[in-house]
Amino acid sequence: MIDVYFENLPVGHVIELGQHRVTREAIIEFATEFDPQPHHLDDEAANASILKGLSASGWHTCAIMMRMLCDGLVHRAASMGSPGIDEVRWMKPVRPDDLLTMRGEVKSARVSKSRPEMGIVDIEWSLFNEREQVALMRATGLYQVKNPEAA
Amino acid sequence: MIDVYFENLPVGHVIELGQHRVTREAIIEFATEFDPQPHHLDDEAANASILKGLSASGWHTCAIMMRMLCDGLVHRAASMGSPGIDEVRWMKPVRPDDLLTMRGEVKSARVSKSRPEMGIVDIEWSLFNEREQVALMRATGLYQVKNPEAA
Repeated sequence: MIDVYFENLPVGHVIELGQHRVTREAIIEFATEFDPQPHHLDDEAANASILKGLSASGWHTCAIMMRMLCDGLVHRAASMGSPGIDEVRWMKPVRPDDLLTMRGEVKSARVSKSRPEMGIVDIEWSLFNEREQVALMRATGLYQVKNPEAA
Repeated sequence: MIDVYFENLPVGHVIELGQHRVTREAIIEFATEFDPQPHHLDDEAANASILKGLSASGWHTCAIMMRMLCDGLVHRAASMGSPGIDEVRWMKPVRPDDLLTMRGEVKSARVSKSRPEMGIVDIEWSLFNEREQVALMRATGLYQVKNPEAA
């Protein structure tokens, strides 16, 4: 059921998503395919690294955020895709067994001048483990305007 | 063998990476786990979508770029990680059977004031299929300074 349109995402609107449990197996599986640096693959190398222990690839963290977004928002939104990302910050390592939650806040929302049926929404997403924020992502999303004449 | 230090990445330096062949199976496998939107999973839905055909998740594209970076640069660089990404642009869809190549250009390079053994390097990475650019990523990387007293 589609119930999130551009009109439902005004500036200041907050979206809570989650939860996602990270596993050691998922960290190693992702890193093996996409980011085979020793500190994402092997405990001994990870313990000797700057991050002092096994941690997820930053791109794995982004992919997990996308999955949380799909499950919590995109599947019920009139989404028209995304042209890109304005910022990603990997603030703290994401570890095996971390339980992640995510919160988004709409930072800007405007109707496209050239395509009045499309809204452009910038959301700042914050990812947390049980103790602290671990990542930040500012993403532009395109959402269908439900009532172009009123918007 | 580590032979890329901060000193080897001056402004204007160009790095060529590649090649990576994208497969239909990889697109569907990534999307199933991280971005299960119908146009990344199913030909019929994809053909009816804005992108008119199956395409890789933008996050899959980023993960492929990371793998190309690992294989072509990181494994021989004195890398000290990355605090984040300044921009990602998904310019054109990445399709099954695309053969991707990647080029980076160093946009800024400076030694950390608080940690003179660490250099901060901003690289703009461009990803191409056989015909055109498909993505852009501006990433900050941290690299060991080989000779802190000279840098």
